[in-house]
Amino acid sequence: MRAELIAVGTELLLGQIVDTHSAYLSQELSRLGIDVYYHSTVGDNRGRLQEVIRLAKSRSDIVIFTGGLGPTEDDLTKEALAEVLGVSLIEHAPSLEHIRGFFKARGLTMPEANRKQAMVFPGGVVFPNPNGTAPGVAVTHDQVTYVLLPGPPVELIPMFEDHVRSFLHGLLPHDEVVVSRVLRFYGIGESHLEEKVGHILRQQSNPTIAPLAKEGEVTLRLTAKAASEAEAQALIQPVRQALLEVVGKYCYSDNDEPLERICIRRLTEQQRTVALAESCSGGLLAETLTSIPGSSQAVKGGIVSYSNEAKERLLQVPASVLERFGAVSMEAALHMAEGARAALNTDFALSITGVAGPEPAEEKPVGLVYVGLAEKGQPSRAYRLQLSGSRRKIQIRSVKHAMFILQERLKKGETT
Amino acid sequence: MRAELIAVGTELLLGQIVDTHSAYLSQELSRLGIDVYYHSTVGDNRGRLQEVIRLAKSRSDIVIFTGGLGPTEDDLTKEALAEVLGVSLIEHAPSLEHIRGFFKARGLTMPEANRKQAMVFPGGVVFPNPNGTAPGVAVTHDQVTYVLLPGPPVELIPMFEDHVRSFLHGLLPHDEVVVSRVLRFYGIGESHLEEKVGHILRQQSNPTIAPLAKEGEVTLRLTAKAASEAEAQALIQPVRQALLEVVGKYCYSDNDEPLERICIRRLTEQQRTVALAESCSGGLLAETLTSIPGSSQAVKGGIVSYSNEAKERLLQVPASVLERFGAVSMEAALHMAEGARAALNTDFALSITGVAGPEPAEEKPVGLVYVGLAEKGQPSRAYRLQLSGSRRKIQIRSVKHAMFILQERLKKGETT
Repeated sequence: MRAELIAVGTELLLGQIVDTHSAYLSQELSRLGIDVYYHSTVGDNRGRLQEVIRLAKSRSDIVIFTGGLGPTEDDLTKEALAEVLGVSLIEHAPSLEHIRGFFKARGLTMPEANRKQAMVFPGGVVFPNPNGTAPGVAVTHDQVTYVLLPGPPVELIPMFEDHVRSFLHGLLPHDEVVVSRVLRFYGIGESHLEEKVGHILRQQSNPTIAPLAKEGEVTLRLTAKAASEAEAQALIQPVRQALLEVVGKYCYSDNDEPLERICIRRLTEQQRTVALAESCSGGLLAETLTSIPGSSQAVKGGIVSYSNEAKERLLQVPASVLERFGAVSMEAALHMAEGARAALNTDFALSITGVAGPEPAEEKPVGLVYVGLAEKGQPSRAYRLQLSGSRRKIQIRSVKHAMFILQERLKKGETT
Repeated sequence: MRAELIAVGTELLLGQIVDTHSAYLSQELSRLGIDVYYHSTVGDNRGRLQEVIRLAKSRSDIVIFTGGLGPTEDDLTKEALAEVLGVSLIEHAPSLEHIRGFFKARGLTMPEANRKQAMVFPGGVVFPNPNGTAPGVAVTHDQVTYVLLPGPPVELIPMFEDHVRSFLHGLLPHDEVVVSRVLRFYGIGESHLEEKVGHILRQQSNPTIAPLAKEGEVTLRLTAKAASEAEAQALIQPVRQALLEVVGKYCYSDNDEPLERICIRRLTEQQRTVALAESCSGGLLAETLTSIPGSSQAVKGGIVSYSNEAKERLLQVPASVLERFGAVSMEAALHMAEGARAALNTDFALSITGVAGPEPAEEKPVGLVYVGLAEKGQPSRAYRLQLSGSRRKIQIRSVKHAMFILQERLKKGETT
């Protein structure tokens, strides 16, 4: 099955927003075993949109549109498609009721413009949208299936998760399942990883092995197609084994569990707590760990000690240490971690202090970062990193390193 | 001049990475006054790439490719284009020397595979790449200009800034400049804004008016083309005036300055400082404000008081207040702000406490958020919000509201 994605919206062509929908949908389709051969982006222009539709129709089995389902005159995805297919849209009463209710809940009356959002394709499918007004719609015509989804990720993603994925799954030949397994690696770069396992990558067929470099880490996604889940897993197993034999020491998760989730899970399992002290990462470590549901048991709190004053007042880092070694130092990292641990009375504390850039600081180079780990009843430790890249990249990598260190320490705790 | 962007790379179709190049280039082209009508993404497949090239050739004046300039067999952008145009590539000695030097600097010899990166179009232009191996290339053929650029942003962006922008500028009719002005609005949703200024939007011609909804705010970009900067500004002025007459009370910036930048700028100008106390936003407010260069003067630090313990220990919120009113309350927000202000001895402090979701907490609904503002020598204030959406959306909107409140308060400070 060949799929094509069409992102509709002049704001995409003006570069005002980045098209994340296509990446999201492509990943999801890939997991379903549907091959995406084309992405296009087109503006809110009926003529060009219809051109793109006719092209897609001629070369793909599934065409997925995002955007252009709003109430304004510029929103024309449904209308353009209906015209190309030569069908008339019909009003869908439950959708109209939902849209009216959406406005009523905000103490407003539905503007007439929104009425067209309740128009759907006869004989097609309607996907409810609890996070917005426009329902998604789908219709199959002349052996091509068209799926029209809202643009905003907060509407698109739940709709896909709850309804569209199973709809697409239903389009697939039923004698096949697709199973993926993701291995996550830290401490090795993409080119080196590919070099080490190149012989395995070159021989891949089923499962396929897809490397992906993320900021500061690399993943390998193994995807197998077979007649049943069990058979697919049996195909994956030896390939996973072969990969781990070569690069297993860099693999921190073999079931796609990100660092933050591992940290929270292990802390929760061991009933232990952590406090955070951040300087150059500005709150990103706290934000990352607390993004995991249920983290409130494990993460008592954090301190963003952006200024030296804050380090002294909130973390009890002695002024003499800051004077002598600077805020970007092994000593500061150790004191910050110990100060956070004591202030919040936790089992562990992590600290990050460094030069995120773009300017050097304290005559220290951009990318010099210290990560500290304090532990109740144990000596504190600090680690020196020399990172490169943009400010944001350095912040993200520092945060990943801090989490990597914590989950490694907690791993040892599992055998204690 | 009509431009089209083609992003080359199978990893884009697999959704493994998000195509940020297209957004970046689209914005830049928009600023140059070049209209982008199409984006396409295509895999590392010669046949499909040539299909896309032929289509682009038939409908656009400028075709810009990103990706596919690497040394591997999958990198075929130049080769595919050369074949469609019926030209032979030639070796460019300075580029070859640069590539050899790149490897030598790393103590390596250039692999033969990289040699093809030095092939360019005869009669064309070469854009140097100090951040990688592959130079960018451009060639005009049959009245269509093709520009081929490397994929990685760290190579693409400097190349565009240093060479490609002026190259493209040289393709334009020399009697025109393009000027934009962006108005930013808070406290009004996109549909309502468009409803209120609909009569102005419908009549737009030069300048064009492009609305864009971001999380919790809306912008209008006015873009004018004229013979000079002054004339373009003169075209923008009355339209800006007309818009502000209707919706000016929601406009917090008329020169595209985001909330965080305004906060830091006003604090710095007034030589005042702020401390932050966050619960449900988990560090996002600290991160957002400290993302502005130079914020270290204004932002002394922050506390992420994720647990009630942290609120008591770090912010001196009385246990009795938490017991009686809960952590998600007006009272808690006031105490948190005052506690942060006192702990860091700043002029102001902002606090955020609420239920970000997905579950309710303390029997309070998802989206109930309190934002507190403490000010030295003034009574503290707290604001109650009822937000909707995903956890992330609620966090972002709380943070925006906190910043909006602060910059409003600082605006009054300017007239004091």
